[in-house]
Amino acid sequence: MSQLDIDSIIKALGTVISRGQKSPLALHEPFFHGNEWAYVKDCLDSTWVSYVGQYVDKFEIMLAEFTGVQKAVAVVNGTAALHMALKLADVTPGDEVLVPALTFVATANAVAHCGAIPHFADSDERTLGLDPLKLKDYLKAVSQVRSSGCINKFSGRRISTVIPVHIFGHPVDLDSLAEVCEEYKIVMVEDAAEALGSYYRGRHTGNHGKLSILSFNGNKTITTGGGGAILTNDAALAALAKHLTSTAKIPHKWEFRHDHIGFNYRLPNLNAALGCAQMEQLPGFLEQKRKLSESYQKAFAKIEGIRFFTEPSFAKSNYWLNVILLDAASSERRDELLEKTNEHGFKTRPAWDLLNTLPMFRGCPAMDLSCAENLVKRIINIPSSSFLGNNHE
Amino acid sequence: MSQLDIDSIIKALGTVISRGQKSPLALHEPFFHGNEWAYVKDCLDSTWVSYVGQYVDKFEIMLAEFTGVQKAVAVVNGTAALHMALKLADVTPGDEVLVPALTFVATANAVAHCGAIPHFADSDERTLGLDPLKLKDYLKAVSQVRSSGCINKFSGRRISTVIPVHIFGHPVDLDSLAEVCEEYKIVMVEDAAEALGSYYRGRHTGNHGKLSILSFNGNKTITTGGGGAILTNDAALAALAKHLTSTAKIPHKWEFRHDHIGFNYRLPNLNAALGCAQMEQLPGFLEQKRKLSESYQKAFAKIEGIRFFTEPSFAKSNYWLNVILLDAASSERRDELLEKTNEHGFKTRPAWDLLNTLPMFRGCPAMDLSCAENLVKRIINIPSSSFLGNNHE
Repeated sequence: MSQLDIDSIIKALGTVISRGQKSPLALHEPFFHGNEWAYVKDCLDSTWVSYVGQYVDKFEIMLAEFTGVQKAVAVVNGTAALHMALKLADVTPGDEVLVPALTFVATANAVAHCGAIPHFADSDERTLGLDPLKLKDYLKAVSQVRSSGCINKFSGRRISTVIPVHIFGHPVDLDSLAEVCEEYKIVMVEDAAEALGSYYRGRHTGNHGKLSILSFNGNKTITTGGGGAILTNDAALAALAKHLTSTAKIPHKWEFRHDHIGFNYRLPNLNAALGCAQMEQLPGFLEQKRKLSESYQKAFAKIEGIRFFTEPSFAKSNYWLNVILLDAASSERRDELLEKTNEHGFKTRPAWDLLNTLPMFRGCPAMDLSCAENLVKRIINIPSSSFLGNNHE
Repeated sequence: MSQLDIDSIIKALGTVISRGQKSPLALHEPFFHGNEWAYVKDCLDSTWVSYVGQYVDKFEIMLAEFTGVQKAVAVVNGTAALHMALKLADVTPGDEVLVPALTFVATANAVAHCGAIPHFADSDERTLGLDPLKLKDYLKAVSQVRSSGCINKFSGRRISTVIPVHIFGHPVDLDSLAEVCEEYKIVMVEDAAEALGSYYRGRHTGNHGKLSILSFNGNKTITTGGGGAILTNDAALAALAKHLTSTAKIPHKWEFRHDHIGFNYRLPNLNAALGCAQMEQLPGFLEQKRKLSESYQKAFAKIEGIRFFTEPSFAKSNYWLNVILLDAASSERRDELLEKTNEHGFKTRPAWDLLNTLPMFRGCPAMDLSCAENLVKRIINIPSSSFLGNNHE
């Protein structure tokens, strides 16, 4: 029997979050106490609820200003954003795209939507995200750099792109990855779906790849109901993203002529209105989330069998979803911990099943995944809504 | 010089719609005077704005009940709905899909999103939609029915599917098309994006194909901001549509396992809330739109050079966008009519440019398109918002 002290974990959860909260708590809930109703009502009153309207433009400007990326293009969700970003990064059918095995399934789905093949990479225990150094050694062994790019010696396919995913909001070691990309002629597209408000060496995540994406799903730090955005510092790519995520119509006072196959991934003005109100509150949300993670860190500090995951020195994380990591010896009791915490009204869950184990991706190429395989048995997410950080010092 | 009487057309537009309306009028504007505020505010108050919530289920039930189709699956827009419907109808990469040349570009885009090739078909002046009899003669000449389906003798590709589009809400001659489909082993997927509230021989459009789709864009008869739905009487296909338009997760209290490549095309609860309020008002909207079209019909009855388009005997149309058809001799003055009506504050526009003329579809197969080529010079859409029918007898 391991030394995992489940009773103390439950007590610690109670200390940090039982401040008159309803039960059961979800992992991450939205909080609407700003201008949400005012802006949404304005949409309804003006009847500008659809694809034309001031809130979409305003939301895109707010996202660009907050992240420091030159251009943001708002779309229906993070999957659509990643599909479009990969297409604009020139991912073509038959390419291989490096994806961490330990991530939400949408990352690999977007690769498949391009007709490309996910190639699964291992994780780094320091970040929970893709391990650049291990990837470098792997590419040295399996690939050859030619004028056409990085070729997988075993499949003969081009490894065109890598998608670092900032898992639970915690930044990947991007500089190390950028070096690998340069050496192996691989394009970086950042999946910052979970990382709005997270920084790598002082620069916002999503500001390091050729293109990047954000998500505003209901469980994210801010929400638009459903929504996402493409980020890029390349103005021409941003303009093309805007064009292709609409119906690719050429502007004219009455003619309907289109010059590309459009995707109709636009975010409606109604959802963007909600997003504008949420963006106004984002700095406060991030402050509250940081206080919550600090409280968790203190509360879990002396409990046996676990470690509260904290950002590495190069990162400032948004702590989107807080993580406790079971010690190796305690990992066999993971499900017991999940069962008991949920019974006590504290929503907890493990990491996603590794993507290489899912039926639709089982035949895809993969490197040694020993770190991801180890992490997936040990990660537990705990309630992380920003409002839980209220009143914490 | 033709006999086109532009001054009388402007006067007639004024008679029908200048009842204290603001200017300029758009072609079709939303109308929110039901429970829109109440339902949307309920979403915000409950924080259930995203992919879980009662309004999505309620909206799907309302759509199924109204159309008489067994199941409706709400999605982000009509393009996404058609992409998914075509995939579920077994459209595979390299197939040809019959699409009218005279339709909105989204129909052909959804075909391209499946990796299939649009094959353009001609229109029927009685319906403005696909001409089943001309298609039958064409298929006789160019195709061969084999055990694997209908094969294009010239390209060698399978013609797997046909998409009748109910143009501007006016129903296609579906029984005649169904006969062609049966004879040539072609699956019918109805694009009823514009046709909510339109009936063919007493049965709602979208209730005739293997699958069908609706759109709730801001310019449609009802709107959800952006939105669409897949309709089908096949419960197994509906369940698969629901699964694939999410992230295809297997239900479990905490595990994240997925068994298909999901598309994340779900409609957020916030948008569905708007849709529920709109559906409650749909019968009233349809009544008003019918009064408006009757007023137009009377007002345009004696004007030289044009004819107001009316539903054929087998159809009851929603008159989503009202149409005046220029006589052949007047068609050269189309742009002059557009210019002058728009100058007078009456938004008018021509039909979409034929899809076979757009750069991305120029190499696609096409039958003789003489009727569509003729219609595209003669169609003028005129303001059609439901509220313009208020106070009409």
